[in-house]
Parts: sequence; structure tokens; C-alpha cells
Amino acid sequence: MNKFAAHAPSDAAKGMRALASGWFGEVSDMWPGQAMSLRVDEELFRGKSDFQDVLVFRNAAYGNVLVLDGVIQATERDEFSYQEMMTHLALCSTKSAPKRVLVVGGGDGGVLREVTRHSSVERAEMAEIDGMVPEMAKKYLPYMARGFEDPRAEVMICDGIDYVTKAEADSYDAIIVDSSDPIGPASVLFEEKFFRQIYRVLKPGGVLCSQAECAWLHLDLIVDLAKMCKEIFVNGSVQYGYTSIPTYPSGQIGFMLCCKPDEDGSTVDFTKPKRYPTPVEGSDLKPMRYYNAQVHAAAFVLPEFAREALEPHLVRGKE
Amino acid sequence: MNKFAAHAPSDAAKGMRALASGWFGEVSDMWPGQAMSLRVDEELFRGKSDFQDVLVFRNAAYGNVLVLDGVIQATERDEFSYQEMMTHLALCSTKSAPKRVLVVGGGDGGVLREVTRHSSVERAEMAEIDGMVPEMAKKYLPYMARGFEDPRAEVMICDGIDYVTKAEADSYDAIIVDSSDPIGPASVLFEEKFFRQIYRVLKPGGVLCSQAECAWLHLDLIVDLAKMCKEIFVNGSVQYGYTSIPTYPSGQIGFMLCCKPDEDGSTVDFTKPKRYPTPVEGSDLKPMRYYNAQVHAAAFVLPEFAREALEPHLVRGKE
Repeated sequence: MNKFAAHAPSDAAKGMRALASGWFGEVSDMWPGQAMSLRVDEELFRGKSDFQDVLVFRNAAYGNVLVLDGVIQATERDEFSYQEMMTHLALCSTKSAPKRVLVVGGGDGGVLREVTRHSSVERAEMAEIDGMVPEMAKKYLPYMARGFEDPRAEVMICDGIDYVTKAEADSYDAIIVDSSDPIGPASVLFEEKFFRQIYRVLKPGGVLCSQAECAWLHLDLIVDLAKMCKEIFVNGSVQYGYTSIPTYPSGQIGFMLCCKPDEDGSTVDFTKPKRYPTPVEGSDLKPMRYYNAQVHAAAFVLPEFAREALEPHLVRGKE
Repeated sequence: MNKFAAHAPSDAAKGMRALASGWFGEVSDMWPGQAMSLRVDEELFRGKSDFQDVLVFRNAAYGNVLVLDGVIQATERDEFSYQEMMTHLALCSTKSAPKRVLVVGGGDGGVLREVTRHSSVERAEMAEIDGMVPEMAKKYLPYMARGFEDPRAEVMICDGIDYVTKAEADSYDAIIVDSSDPIGPASVLFEEKFFRQIYRVLKPGGVLCSQAECAWLHLDLIVDLAKMCKEIFVNGSVQYGYTSIPTYPSGQIGFMLCCKPDEDGSTVDFTKPKRYPTPVEGSDLKPMRYYNAQVHAAAFVLPEFAREALEPHLVRGKE
């Protein structure tokens, strides 16, 4: 008898419910009528942080699975797609190799791990609001948490908006906003006020990569986000890329990539990778499994329905 | 109370079961531990053909959904991705515009509809084993069934292997094998004997596009299929492309594309589209929503884990 079965009928609130005994179903108003479902082979943790419901379970096929407020955040089997693409679409696009990088959110550590894959990076700061998430990652998603061990990593448990607001202008080569969906604690990470602060603290020529939902589900939201970014990154570039990932809703997730214009007026064309991540000597990170230069360029080729809606609101770089 | 709820506990066989009242969960040994789940807002049909279990239901977000043997075949919302990509990756790649095309399987009519989008096509034959599938499509998926109305379409309800085996050598510009998964009635459509017959009946320079599963789930099977194709299409080309589609397992599906060498020894490079589908005058087909020339080329750019495993067994064209 599956350990999870006894718990299944409870916790129907916030979508954290099993569709049947022994299964977790990702039911949410954000994607009505559909639910990625994973069998719960062993429940490892169920609790509440100060910010959200936290669930960790083991699935024989996907390994350990982290769920926040009823939404799958990462599984050991497919996390590499999201972490590699979110990180390297940004860090491989800048004119000079990035030195100072900030991750907002991303408490599971996966993006931080990929940031540390770049030997050029001198400081990798992370501002995560929920201290329970890194703790869960260290315990249950050890390969994702690997970035925490890097001596260049500086992990702050704090409000990411506060952190950015207090940061000095023109400080960062790249900022990655690895947020959960725009319902719940991450909703403020999709607001104009926050994006204006990001713009302020980016160096000239610096880049932002923000989690930007799935074109199959939230094209209207993505269009609105692109419009906002185009207004904020004046004379900059704004592009939308995506990756496939089985355990995110509809099997894919996108990223909004924005560049603040450089002092000479040039901007990054994100579709053209400038480098390949080279870890510091002695690194024991596994080779990448999703990202390569061709995948980087292809990530910006949108299906016709998405291209038609989004292209008028994107701005290609002028390198 | 949802109409489906009363039926839910029955039909647990063959994975055709609801994970909970009012939901359909695509449970299968082919993708253990995961299940795309769709809410059943109205059950429209449930029965058995001579070959398989057939279920049709309505989902408020996805429209009408066709399920065979417990596996989602098509939904009105996202079918265009599969049909357009499967068809045009093949028909836009040939040196000359295709005239005679055969679809094996594809009883829902979606691929046939896309084949008729090419004004060059003179004969669009379809050999589908299960007569109930076109009937279901005509009734519940009318836009998919549109191809049946085209005067160039010739729909045969028969065994596709028999049909190909009896066909004349060097007859077809393109053959599309739109099969279900390699368990159940479609298993023979993944066998060497069938592929050898396809090779025989293709014209020199003719192309095959065969449904070829998802790299996230069945990379070993895809590698085996590529090896087999490389042996059969001697001096030809063999490439693997894919598309995203939310309601297929893990959100994507791939295609094996093979070219029989032309008389001058040249072969098709599938990554380079040669034309854009142009419907016959007066056609009332809606514009395409997934395919365009850039998407065509990008479909062959594989994530690193898939590229590494597959590339040694692929053969790029020499045009």
C-alpha cells in the first residue's frame, strides 16, 4: 500500500491534491482542465514554510520531486533542461564573459549551479525569500543544490525585490529571475516596479532572463510581459526563448530575455551565442545535457501562433 | 455532477481509467509513473471498434478529445502542431513538389487535411485499418476530418501493410506513417518488413515520415529505429525532428524522416525546406498555426542528450 494513499484526500486546497490514491495531480486554475500527474512512490516531506506549502515525493521514473503550493518546481530527471537553458541563454549571450550575476528566487539552487559553470563568474549572488526551499534542495535534490557549495556563491534569504532595490546602479552583468508562477509569493516578480529596478542595477550591456511561462497556455500574459519589457528596456533588446520540459504544464516553459543598451548603443542579439560555458578547473559538475550552441539559437524560433502574437512586441539586438 | 463521474471506476483495463471522478488520466506502461490528465466535461462516446477501445470526450479547454486504447490521439486545441509538422517536414523537403502521397494510419484525417494543403498533390491516398476512427473524426473532430472531403483524397479502410505490399514499386513521392504507439494494432508499423516495403514503393528521391515517439521517454527505441532506417535507406538520408504538443506524453513527439536516394544519387536534406504549402485556389483551410520555414529547420536541432545518442545513427542529406 502506497504511503501517500492515506493522505490523498486531504489538502484539496491550493490544488495540492492527488487525483487518485497514490498520484499527485497538478490541478490549478492557471491551466484549467489539465493536470500533469506523477505517481507518488514515497512521500518524503509535507509541510508549510512561512510562504507556501511544500511537498517532496519520490517518483520511480522522475526521482525526487519538489512541489510548492501544488505546482511542480523540479524533478531530478528533467530539471537540467530548465536550469541550463534559463542560465546559459543569458550568460552565453553577453558581449563580454559575465563576472557578477544575481539570481532572484531559484531557491532550489539549480540555476546557481549552472551560473557557477562559467569560470568567468566571480560573484554569484542569490536572493531567495523562502529559506525552506534551499533546505529541501540540500536534503532531497543534492545535485541541484551543488551550486550552494561553490565558494563564489553568496546565498541571501531575503526579499528579492528589497535586495535589488537596495543594490547599486550598474552592478550586474546578468540577473536571472527564477520565479514560480505569477500567483502566490512570486506575483510581485512580474510587476513593472521590479523590472525597473532590475534595469537600474544592470550594467550597460547587462542582461535579464526572467521565467516567462508557456506559450501554449499563457500567450496573452507573455505578450503583456514583452510589451512591458520593451517600454522599460528602451533602445535595448527583448526576445523570448523556450525549452521543453516534461513536468512543467504543457511540457514547455519560456524565458523573457532583455538587454540594457551598452554605452556604445549596441545591444545583445540573444539568438547568437558568444561562448560555451567552461567550468573552473577541478569542477565536478556533470556535462550539460540540454544546452548547446544550436539549441540556444533554435530556442528563439517560435511556433507560428506564438510568433504571430509575440513578434511585434520583441526587439532584436543590434550587435 | 459530472456525467463522467459515474463511469470513472470502470474500464481500468488498458489504462482507460479516470484518476479521479471526472478526470481522464493517461496511465500506461509506456510512460510509467506519469499521466497527462484532462478533465472530462462531457463524455461523448465510449465503445469498442474491431481493433481498439475508443473514447471521445469534451474538455472545456481542449475541445473534443479522441482516445484510443487509453492513449490521447488528438484534441481540437493542439492537433495542428502534430498534423502540420508531420506532414510538412516531409512534403516541403522533397526536391520537386510532391504529387502522389500515401498516409498509412492517420484515420482521424488530420494529416490528410495537411497533405491537401499542397496544390501540387494529385492523389492523396489513406490506408487506415480501423473504420471507426474516420467516423469518430467526422462526427466529433470536424476540422480534422476536412481532408476527407477533398476530391483528391482516396480513403481506404484496410490493412496499411497489405496496401503497401501490393503497391507498385517506385510509386510515391511521400509516405506518412501516422501510427499510434508501438503497443497495440500499430506495433507492426514499426517493423523492418514494413519499412522495407515502404522503401520499395517510394519513388527515387521519395521520402518517408514516420511517427517516432518522444526523446524524453523513448530514446532507446528512437535510436533503434534510426539504426534500422539507416540500413534500409542505403545511401539515403535519415533525420529526426520533433514538435511540441501539450497533450502527448511529456509534451513532445518526434518524426523519423528518411529519403530514398534519387537517380543521380542526391538525397534530401530535411533540415532545409524547399517550399511553403500553397493550397489549391478556393480552399477554405485555416492558415497554419505551427509550421513555418524557421520552425521546420529548428525541428531538427536536438537537445544535447538526444543529439549525443542519435547523431551517430542519422545521415544528413546530400542535395
